[in-house]
Amino acid sequence: MQTLILRGEPAREEAMAKLRAKLSAAPRAPGLAVVVVGEDPASAVYVRNKTKACEALGYRHQTHRFPAETSEAELLACVAGLNADPGVDGILVQLPLPPGLQAERILGALDPLKDVDGFHPENLGLLVSGHPRCVPCTPRGVLRLLQHYDVPLAGRRVAVVGRSVIVGRTLALLLSLKGKGGDATVVMCHSATPDLAAETSRADIVVAAMGRARALDRRHVRRGAVVVDVGINRLPGPAGGASLLAGDVDTAAMQDWAAACTPVPGGVGLMTVAMLMQNTWEAMCRREGLV
Amino acid sequence: MQTLILRGEPAREEAMAKLRAKLSAAPRAPGLAVVVVGEDPASAVYVRNKTKACEALGYRHQTHRFPAETSEAELLACVAGLNADPGVDGILVQLPLPPGLQAERILGALDPLKDVDGFHPENLGLLVSGHPRCVPCTPRGVLRLLQHYDVPLAGRRVAVVGRSVIVGRTLALLLSLKGKGGDATVVMCHSATPDLAAETSRADIVVAAMGRARALDRRHVRRGAVVVDVGINRLPGPAGGASLLAGDVDTAAMQDWAAACTPVPGGVGLMTVAMLMQNTWEAMCRREGLV
Repeated sequence: MQTLILRGEPAREEAMAKLRAKLSAAPRAPGLAVVVVGEDPASAVYVRNKTKACEALGYRHQTHRFPAETSEAELLACVAGLNADPGVDGILVQLPLPPGLQAERILGALDPLKDVDGFHPENLGLLVSGHPRCVPCTPRGVLRLLQHYDVPLAGRRVAVVGRSVIVGRTLALLLSLKGKGGDATVVMCHSATPDLAAETSRADIVVAAMGRARALDRRHVRRGAVVVDVGINRLPGPAGGASLLAGDVDTAAMQDWAAACTPVPGGVGLMTVAMLMQNTWEAMCRREGLV
Repeated sequence: MQTLILRGEPAREEAMAKLRAKLSAAPRAPGLAVVVVGEDPASAVYVRNKTKACEALGYRHQTHRFPAETSEAELLACVAGLNADPGVDGILVQLPLPPGLQAERILGALDPLKDVDGFHPENLGLLVSGHPRCVPCTPRGVLRLLQHYDVPLAGRRVAVVGRSVIVGRTLALLLSLKGKGGDATVVMCHSATPDLAAETSRADIVVAAMGRARALDRRHVRRGAVVVDVGINRLPGPAGGASLLAGDVDTAAMQDWAAACTPVPGGVGLMTVAMLMQNTWEAMCRREGLV
């Protein structure tokens, strides 16, 4: 069995092309504000990618940088200013925040209508209640990638491994929603699951989002299943060389085993920024009364 | 195998006794306001039970009754008044609302700190993010009942059948949370699950919450599993007689088959009002700065 590689690039390009078509008819460009605290190197890469995407689409964008020792009060003041700024449609607080700052308190202060990461409790709650408004970018990107490659979900058994808010829990909620893009039977697996392989090897689709490099192998995946690898783990490279990126799946072991598998890098990760652009567009449309 | 009947009464009495002990040392009695629209007969029973529980515990309580043709604006005005009333700690809008009224709009207008049913998006979202504040009463009651009978959850496989916000989705989130009272591996099953018995018969604990009378039988439950029946279905009684209540499980078939099973009536249903009292107590504590 030749394993199909579910590359992120064509799915991202499709999403961006659709967005460009809408933007060309829009009354104004959406505006995104990114708040960065401290000097996390991975965050720096992500913020750069977001800025590039804004520039590619003609979004207005601003980045607010704070040192790691910034107080909660200073950040809340920044958020309040961005909430009130009519030119800002979306606000993204880059996670993780430095120790000492509680993400829940900062995220909870965002105007939920500008919360383009979808982590404000009100947006998470609307997802539970089946009326999603702003959906977190990575789960949304997973769905979009599967849709691009015509992977059906309705009636399928999906094992989601990992219970983070950012990916696992929100993705499980989305997949199990009634109707189009949902209707999957979802099993939520995590670090307290005694026999992980027993759960995942029954699944038609396995989503790995637990943040452990190459932790899933052939024992965890039945022959012919579809594998979505959300993990991005940095491993030491060969002596003196640059570090390597690895997913949560042993990708080499999936060759000629899985029906399809997303690569790392170049898979789901590419979708996340595109979905952020999509969310920011939709936030503008809601604010302008266009939806 | 003698099947243990997980009666709700002792679990409810334990919860109420603990609550009474706390109330005896409280600075004031909690206050609950119930909003009822229209004349749903089942709702009338539930509202009566809530009033009785308030009286038994010495809570202040008020019931606001509206005819079925009440406008959204009138209800929102009532909610705004209750939000502002310092004597009201908890507000409950009895569901279902008559056709023409959108529950999301009314529930979304509640002060989230007074939302003792836990259906406001902000409270549902806090459950997703792993910091539950006000947890819906029925899922909370299920956990409390299982706890009363020392049914372990950590590392167990739980099948939740039904994806309502009120029970299935919120219970799945609770059961899969990290830590005490959670850590279960949860499979979310629903009307689009092609082979329900294949999922539920693998589970250590089966929770039936899909609202179909006696739909689960021995094919769906492995020998020795624990069965929690959340369904309350009204069936026609014998000719001329009163109607019957039936759960979502064929309880008779569970005898000498399941390790344990909750009865209907007299099982989970008894817990719901006790958990409402608990939520109202906690809402008062938060408002008074006691937690």
